[in-house]
Amino acid sequence: MSAEIRAIGHNGLMNSRAVIPPRATRSERKRQTREALLEAALEQLEDRGFGSLSLREVARSAGIVPTGFYRHFDGMDELGLALVEESFRTLRQMIRSARAGRTDMTNVIRASVEILVRHVHEHRLHFRFIARERSSGVPVIRRAIHNEIRLFSSELAVDLARMPFLSDWSGEDLHMVSGLLVDTMVSTAEAILDADPGDPAAEREIVRAAEKRLLLIALGVPQWRPAGRESAAAGAATAT
Amino acid sequence: MSAEIRAIGHNGLMNSRAVIPPRATRSERKRQTREALLEAALEQLEDRGFGSLSLREVARSAGIVPTGFYRHFDGMDELGLALVEESFRTLRQMIRSARAGRTDMTNVIRASVEILVRHVHEHRLHFRFIARERSSGVPVIRRAIHNEIRLFSSELAVDLARMPFLSDWSGEDLHMVSGLLVDTMVSTAEAILDADPGDPAAEREIVRAAEKRLLLIALGVPQWRPAGRESAAAGAATAT
Repeated sequence: MSAEIRAIGHNGLMNSRAVIPPRATRSERKRQTREALLEAALEQLEDRGFGSLSLREVARSAGIVPTGFYRHFDGMDELGLALVEESFRTLRQMIRSARAGRTDMTNVIRASVEILVRHVHEHRLHFRFIARERSSGVPVIRRAIHNEIRLFSSELAVDLARMPFLSDWSGEDLHMVSGLLVDTMVSTAEAILDADPGDPAAEREIVRAAEKRLLLIALGVPQWRPAGRESAAAGAATAT
Repeated sequence: MSAEIRAIGHNGLMNSRAVIPPRATRSERKRQTREALLEAALEQLEDRGFGSLSLREVARSAGIVPTGFYRHFDGMDELGLALVEESFRTLRQMIRSARAGRTDMTNVIRASVEILVRHVHEHRLHFRFIARERSSGVPVIRRAIHNEIRLFSSELAVDLARMPFLSDWSGEDLHMVSGLLVDTMVSTAEAILDADPGDPAAEREIVRAAEKRLLLIALGVPQWRPAGRESAAAGAATAT
């Protein structure tokens, strides 16, 4: 998704946004036009909701005629879903691999936050779109985003379930803690997006707060009594 | 903010949405027209962003002429800020009073979640607006919402600072934990809004998960070492 790749449709060329690779194959050119449409949509979406964006605008801004759009997507919803997928595609895998094999909680937390922050920076427009459409906009897109976030949480719950000291936790409680950790990551990502990009100190503060929050949650885990709320609330400090 | 109160402007009446109280004073009528404008805006905002809403639409739907709008608000931003203020006005105070005098963590958590959920139900349209504009829309509204949420967090940090077992915590760490608790409340409110209102079991699940999350955080607190991350990460289970 390099910003340099601005493709030209092999059909319906209206204006040229990019250099045409001289020997691009048919399928390469098709892929490039698809990417140009996705990028054009993202640029338009920087300051507005997906629901207000028209197919015609996206096509024009990618330099193809509106009918050319349909060679790539069934409609705007499908383009939106592709943006959701792109945003999360590599992130989940990267964060999982940050956990793999690590047992030191602080290192897992640091590596996860670092990957998240880097990913948000590298895909800033994608995550602006995600942050906005998560709570607004088109229902099919909103649901897709919620599903991606839930998938994160489920995968984390599975990893947690493998840890010996969590073996007696119920599925519900594992999902509770993984959901809390993932929501903390989500609000960290949103704080990064909201922060002034020209103020690295603000970002360091967000990162440090995120690490501390995740660590605080991790410190609560051994204190939790899987039997239920009441006994946990009694709150003896013996680890399970 | 009863739905029955649909006021009529004493100026520029275009169509009648409500019964005019026979002896309403001038200032009462003014207040009622103001409320009619706020309600008309909220209704329009159920499925769309604030940025797409025009003053003209709001005025028409409240039954007054557009110029009449300016007797109540300087412009749409001021109306939006009034909606933000209305949404949070009583909530913060109610949740603070839920904490006052209570020392049992489980009871504080339950009471806080219960107040939050009830408030979201009673002001559903307000919180749809808040959820949407929190991450999108008009910058001045977004900032106002962030400020309200930060205010929650600061007040909670002040209450936490008074607790003897947190006396050696730094301000940064107190804000870290209060921010985490408040973010958990925010995502609970959003989950309540997203849940199917016809499915009470789904809501009970959200409430139970919220209580558990808050309790897990509370259980981590005595394990935290105020000195900093590293020593906390070492993670001995002695309470401070």
